[in-house]
Amino acid sequence: MAKLKWGMIGGGEGSQIGPAHRLGALADGKFEFTAAALDHRAEIGRDYAQRLGIVKDRAYGDWQEMLAGEKSRTDRIDLVTVATPNATHFEITKSFLEAGFNVLCEKPMTMTVEEGEDIVRIAQASGKICAVNYCYSAYPMVRQARAMVQAGELGQPRLVVTNFAHGHHADATDADNPRLRWRYDPALAGVSGQFADCGIHALHMASFICDDDVTTLSADFVSTIPSRVLEDDAMVNFRMGRGTVGRLWTSSVAVGRQHGFDIQIFGETGGLRWASEQPNQLIYTPVGGRTQIIEKGEAGLCDDAMRLSRVPIAHPEGFPLAVANIYCDLADAINGEARDALPSATDGLRSMMAVHTAVKSTKANGAWMDARPPMFR
Amino acid sequence: MAKLKWGMIGGGEGSQIGPAHRLGALADGKFEFTAAALDHRAEIGRDYAQRLGIVKDRAYGDWQEMLAGEKSRTDRIDLVTVATPNATHFEITKSFLEAGFNVLCEKPMTMTVEEGEDIVRIAQASGKICAVNYCYSAYPMVRQARAMVQAGELGQPRLVVTNFAHGHHADATDADNPRLRWRYDPALAGVSGQFADCGIHALHMASFICDDDVTTLSADFVSTIPSRVLEDDAMVNFRMGRGTVGRLWTSSVAVGRQHGFDIQIFGETGGLRWASEQPNQLIYTPVGGRTQIIEKGEAGLCDDAMRLSRVPIAHPEGFPLAVANIYCDLADAINGEARDALPSATDGLRSMMAVHTAVKSTKANGAWMDARPPMFR
Amino acid sequence: MAKLKWGMIGGGEGSQIGPAHRLGALADGKFEFTAAALDHRAEIGRDYAQRLGIVKDRAYGDWQEMLAGEKSRTDRIDLVTVATPNATHFEITKSFLEAGFNVLCEKPMTMTVEEGEDIVRIAQASGKICAVNYCYSAYPMVRQARAMVQAGELGQPRLVVTNFAHGHHADATDADNPRLRWRYDPALAGVSGQFADCGIHALHMASFICDDDVTTLSADFVSTIPSRVLEDDAMVNFRMGRGTVGRLWTSSVAVGRQHGFDIQIFGETGGLRWASEQPNQLIYTPVGGRTQIIEKGEAGLCDDAMRLSRVPIAHPEGFPLAVANIYCDLADAINGEARDALPSATDGLRSMMAVHTAVKSTKANGAWMDARPPMFR
Amino acid sequence: MAKLKWGMIGGGEGSQIGPAHRLGALADGKFEFTAAALDHRAEIGRDYAQRLGIVKDRAYGDWQEMLAGEKSRTDRIDLVTVATPNATHFEITKSFLEAGFNVLCEKPMTMTVEEGEDIVRIAQASGKICAVNYCYSAYPMVRQARAMVQAGELGQPRLVVTNFAHGHHADATDADNPRLRWRYDPALAGVSGQFADCGIHALHMASFICDDDVTTLSADFVSTIPSRVLEDDAMVNFRMGRGTVGRLWTSSVAVGRQHGFDIQIFGETGGLRWASEQPNQLIYTPVGGRTQIIEKGEAGLCDDAMRLSRVPIAHPEGFPLAVANIYCDLADAINGEARDALPSATDGLRSMMAVHTAVKSTKANGAWMDARPPMFR
Repeated sequence: MAKLKWGMIGGGEGSQIGPAHRLGALADGKFEFTAAALDHRAEIGRDYAQRLGIVKDRAYGDWQEMLAGEKSRTDRIDLVTVATPNATHFEITKSFLEAGFNVLCEKPMTMTVEEGEDIVRIAQASGKICAVNYCYSAYPMVRQARAMVQAGELGQPRLVVTNFAHGHHADATDADNPRLRWRYDPALAGVSGQFADCGIHALHMASFICDDDVTTLSADFVSTIPSRVLEDDAMVNFRMGRGTVGRLWTSSVAVGRQHGFDIQIFGETGGLRWASEQPNQLIYTPVGGRTQIIEKGEAGLCDDAMRLSRVPIAHPEGFPLAVANIYCDLADAINGEARDALPSATDGLRSMMAVHTAVKSTKANGAWMDARPPMFR
Repeated sequence: MAKLKWGMIGGGEGSQIGPAHRLGALADGKFEFTAAALDHRAEIGRDYAQRLGIVKDRAYGDWQEMLAGEKSRTDRIDLVTVATPNATHFEITKSFLEAGFNVLCEKPMTMTVEEGEDIVRIAQASGKICAVNYCYSAYPMVRQARAMVQAGELGQPRLVVTNFAHGHHADATDADNPRLRWRYDPALAGVSGQFADCGIHALHMASFICDDDVTTLSADFVSTIPSRVLEDDAMVNFRMGRGTVGRLWTSSVAVGRQHGFDIQIFGETGGLRWASEQPNQLIYTPVGGRTQIIEKGEAGLCDDAMRLSRVPIAHPEGFPLAVANIYCDLADAINGEARDALPSATDGLRSMMAVHTAVKSTKANGAWMDARPPMFR
Repeated sequence: MAKLKWGMIGGGEGSQIGPAHRLGALADGKFEFTAAALDHRAEIGRDYAQRLGIVKDRAYGDWQEMLAGEKSRTDRIDLVTVATPNATHFEITKSFLEAGFNVLCEKPMTMTVEEGEDIVRIAQASGKICAVNYCYSAYPMVRQARAMVQAGELGQPRLVVTNFAHGHHADATDADNPRLRWRYDPALAGVSGQFADCGIHALHMASFICDDDVTTLSADFVSTIPSRVLEDDAMVNFRMGRGTVGRLWTSSVAVGRQHGFDIQIFGETGGLRWASEQPNQLIYTPVGGRTQIIEKGEAGLCDDAMRLSRVPIAHPEGFPLAVANIYCDLADAINGEARDALPSATDGLRSMMAVHTAVKSTKANGAWMDARPPMFR
Repeated sequence: MAKLKWGMIGGGEGSQIGPAHRLGALADGKFEFTAAALDHRAEIGRDYAQRLGIVKDRAYGDWQEMLAGEKSRTDRIDLVTVATPNATHFEITKSFLEAGFNVLCEKPMTMTVEEGEDIVRIAQASGKICAVNYCYSAYPMVRQARAMVQAGELGQPRLVVTNFAHGHHADATDADNPRLRWRYDPALAGVSGQFADCGIHALHMASFICDDDVTTLSADFVSTIPSRVLEDDAMVNFRMGRGTVGRLWTSSVAVGRQHGFDIQIFGETGGLRWASEQPNQLIYTPVGGRTQIIEKGEAGLCDDAMRLSRVPIAHPEGFPLAVANIYCDLADAINGEARDALPSATDGLRSMMAVHTAVKSTKANGAWMDARPPMFR
């Protein structure tokens, strides 16, 4: 199947989100990176795009130029990713949808509810895909959790409890650091800080796994660091359409938590637990039965969980990135940089010597033997 | 910087290792996939290579054809990955090294010590890179462990204890399954089963982190399933050049272990522990002090650990692959397959509604409020 | 020092709480069990008390008789434990305090706030001790947490998050079981179910560790099993005197949680975490530093943590009860019951043989040797 | 049932082992502490015994005096615990057995195999109980593991892997500390250091759970701290009577491990894992099935596991000792020492106020309310 053409707006050099999208988009060979407007500084963006392999006439200076350029082509991109500052998501997403492009928008999709309703209407009218990057819902074992709820394996969900807590904004002496400050400044971040940044991932996941929508809520937002206008800690109690009770805590001042995003779903006949820091396991307890550990890759998982697993059972899901690291080192070594940690032929030889020596030692009643390759004695 | 040209031998359609190498090689945009001989069935391999985007004249039928073809070009590949059955690694690696190519060979590099010594000599003579895919050594926190030992933070390592245990070959009723049987058959696997398959990863890591070589060993290999000729469980005691004592246990009949690969290093002034199933943390205890958790991405890690981390602190290392799953679903959806788990504009809207409602509820003393977007009431 | 005299009301044969109090009271040899009114059925209580070693004239038929009897003696008990049904705690505690006895009351101390204020006034007036069995606050590492907060090691606590969740009441088909039903029946349990049963342990611990009192709160109680009048799940947001924000979740329908009681305290300069299921560790993270594991028994802990540790570092705190199990089996064996799991002299011999054989094997280069005692070959 | 009479030799004031035995023996009210020879300094031992409540004529100056005294009585003790230095265990145990007493001996039971055979013969001839304090085998979930193996739930055990590693002797600068040095001095500790101290617990447990005896072994003992004559680290490979392969690692220089005693049993149809630091769970995986967590106290456990559990499911096994701590503080408070951490009537009142306020807040749509008791406003 021919590759799809992919473009990105934002995610310029040095951003965190750019590499994550490029790796994600290109990992499976389904997309090729065709067009980009990577930086609000036009020349810098054009140059970086070309260094990433984009041809010159699709290395755009801004999103308007990219919209015009791509609209005019017969081989226009199949998908555009919007990874710009939050306040610009609405306008860019709207414009590309209206021009007939599929869009993947970083969250939050918009700054207001009205804008959100606009996007929904435009997407429906256009018949194009408008996706939002709630990427945690794409972990195989999250899909499995949803499938189990949908199949009734928990009965009706009574209660969903989800936390997304980290401590990376806990240092008050660092609160004026521009990297952090904008997140708590209404002028830049809108009406909400931590809840809009992390909490909505948790809220989406509650809806996603329970396959139900939030209907009412009650909230307690606080700024534990006084200089902050927007909240750095929030508790939200909610209810969903079929009566499920929800509890959501999110914090950026939870010193010691790294990426404390987890969810528990408690139903009439069973409970589930998943945590982003151990994403390969789903913990399941039937009422009256023993807790079971469902492993990514085990036989009998739902189609989505199987389709989206990249490594077989017994390998941690992040494993392919360790292989990618070997290739990083190799590329550097080929380009002449010293990479002495790269496993070498000598390592391969020493392994073989160890294997053969171990076989001989076993046959000799466990006798100790020289395990150095002859050429290195 | 121009991309390097990469080729692969083996890893045909349906193999586990092919996708892992392609994702690894292509993840960072440093290589492009240029040439391949993917299958021992020439036509099938040529066809699959072209479907993966290889141009026709570099989609080879076998490795000999690929060697001849690439040797004759001026734009020859910069690196070839050898991912064929174990018994063929030696001949292919040797041939490509002698022809002046850089090689990444899957483990085990060879079947005998003599072959291993040949490869080492040829690699040294050729001046080319010959790497072996001991990819666990490329995890950021493994690099950090090595750097700490090299910097003397543990003092001299007294003891290294490493395990690589899984239970995926424990079912005796499945032992004749061809997928498993070859691993314990000397005609196909050589002199060793589980130790050569998994144990050598652990042995390499002991050497890698301690920055020292194994000198002597004593082994106890057993076949706990009687029909197996080669061992499915092994204990190896060893010593390294500077006197470090080693203990290595590996098993494929450890029912309930998924990927139980871990290592502990105990030195004069401190100890370290790393486990492949929680790869983002390195546990460090100074003698007389408290155990500390070193997190991937924290300030002050060694250069290698920083350079090879793909996501910032607070994100689990496998996170980019969840993003990749979003793109998988997007590609399918663009191609017309229903992918209803894909987060949509409606999800984006519901999030925004929740954010705004939560702000209002907080201001109203925690009052419960309708959280449904107006358009969905 | 002479032992103190201890009496108990309630905790009759078959109760869960009676053995826990007897073990607790007698474990350290500071109390002797002197008087009791163990059962609301007078004769059964008198008989059981005597079987537990109470002399006949202090084996009372009810608490009124016990109060009269003990008041009239010159060697009256030093402490009485009130372990009767909740609704009776107030009257008994009040009566004994007024008569000049020290009291340990099971929680909840009273059913109403007015009763509680009465008890506080009476205790103050009497000069006697009135303690409530919030026993989790007596774990050594909880005392350490409190001492660290008091010493300012976290700075001002900004946020305390505590959960007490279990799933033992999740089975709706078992909800009419009398063992459970009373807990959700206002006639027997008062105004609150799960919050009064478990939640108040968590709330006490928040106050205890932060050394501060709750000032305001907002609650969301729900009965997830419709037949229940009182809540089986509750969320309470609160504030404390010095501004600390509190979040407390408690549930009895959290299927899969066994004893999910934990607490996290996040302050200006550090965070702490403790969990009742791993009570020997306190997790501490200074802002900007690495997470550290504080171990029960390590050098430098606060006096309370040291004084209340029963075993040295490296032994789990429950270890003495494994020794107690050996003595249970011994008592049974002495009394003629077969207890074949009791480690025997043969076990002692086999160990010695293993030790000596292992020494010889090591000296013989790891040779395999017969490890059976000569008398058993 | 009348209490049994219990005596102890060794375990004098300040020892670690004395309090553990007293708590263990007295926890369940099956024994009373009747006689003792607690210290090799006769007067100090007699005095301490009397302070612990032993009557004067059974507070002995040494074990010989105790043996003579108890032999001459008609109400002689039913059980004697031998908790003296290791080298004296044999003589004392032998003497009491020969005189017709039941004995619980601390491990190691003897210093040589010949002595061990003597004890076995004497115990058999006497018909008396001679038990050795391998107390880890008395944890409820260890009994459960044994019952499952005996019932064939794992099939034939193929492999048992056990570790007992700690790091409390890793500091070479502390190696001459008398508290540690004797353990590695053959004159005081016999032929083995760490293996005889900790390893034999692990070896006993392997035999205990597999219900099988060690037949052959191969060992690798090392002294990683050069000044030590005896080993501080040991690996022992072994075989048991029915062919089970064993692997045992023990270490006292494993910096960062506190009480790393665990065991894994892998059989034809399932695997088990238990760890002393999480003693309330037994991890079970059937071949081809999901890992399950067996909880202490769940329905359907073996008789021994039920009989020896002191608290119901959902309470950690060490919980009664937290209650004991409350009583410790109470005794001190009654005796006039300030114990301000003791939960007070005020705490009881504040809880009741919180309960009532939370109920009102829930009814008022989650409104925030004053939660201070009226008397404290």
